[in-house]
Amino acid sequence: MDNFMQAAIAEAQAGFAEGGIPIGSVLVHRGAVIGRGHNRRVQQGSAILHGEMDALENAGRQSAQVYRDSVLYTTLSPCAMSSGAILLYGIPRVVIGENADAGDPASCRLNITSLLQQY
Amino acid sequence: MDNFMQAAIAEAQAGFAEGGIPIGSVLVHRGAVIGRGHNRRVQQGSAILHGEMDALENAGRQSAQVYRDSVLYTTLSPCAMSSGAILLYGIPRVVIGENADAGDPASCRLNITSLLQQY
Repeated sequence: MDNFMQAAIAEAQAGFAEGGIPIGSVLVHRGAVIGRGHNRRVQQGSAILHGEMDALENAGRQSAQVYRDSVLYTTLSPCAMSSGAILLYGIPRVVIGENADAGDPASCRLNITSLLQQY
Repeated sequence: MDNFMQAAIAEAQAGFAEGGIPIGSVLVHRGAVIGRGHNRRVQQGSAILHGEMDALENAGRQSAQVYRDSVLYTTLSPCAMSSGAILLYGIPRVVIGENADAGDPASCRLNITSLLQQY
């Protein structure tokens, strides 16, 4: 398997080991991981730290050019919030482990696929 | 002026006093503020804590019904990321102080208005 998807899965496993929802992500710029993250909804009672958001946050502020030259790997299809973040930062490529949704109707309706079809 | 927009502006002012980007938001459920926040991009080097995101995070995890019965007040038109979060949580009403954008082309193209027109 792709090393970067492996790294995203390792993040999901780390989240699971913490008692959290096992979803992980890594942000990769020109072949190097610049941010890793996993869902922290349970661990931190967070409403916004999905795996993708956590990876973006852990990457720190980057220039627009870095985002435009990056790939986001994530173990589960991003929800509307993470999809919006991906669009905001202009990340041109997202590699998804599982193209399901987490059972949230909004997540299903407004996933990355439908958003990118519009824009 | 509406008390809740005043509270959002107070958050923007607090952010400005910290040396940050002056954008503030409050999440209001049935007439009570349940989350306050402001942009923390400068203060925390955050890529995800826009005012709306900070207010959602500070409100903590809420039930779907609470979000569906809430109003988000924000001093500036939400970007794609915050708009995605609003859609994810099904917040039915957003009151915007200024319907401009912060100069980000993605923010301009993918703001709450355009997203809500699609869905």
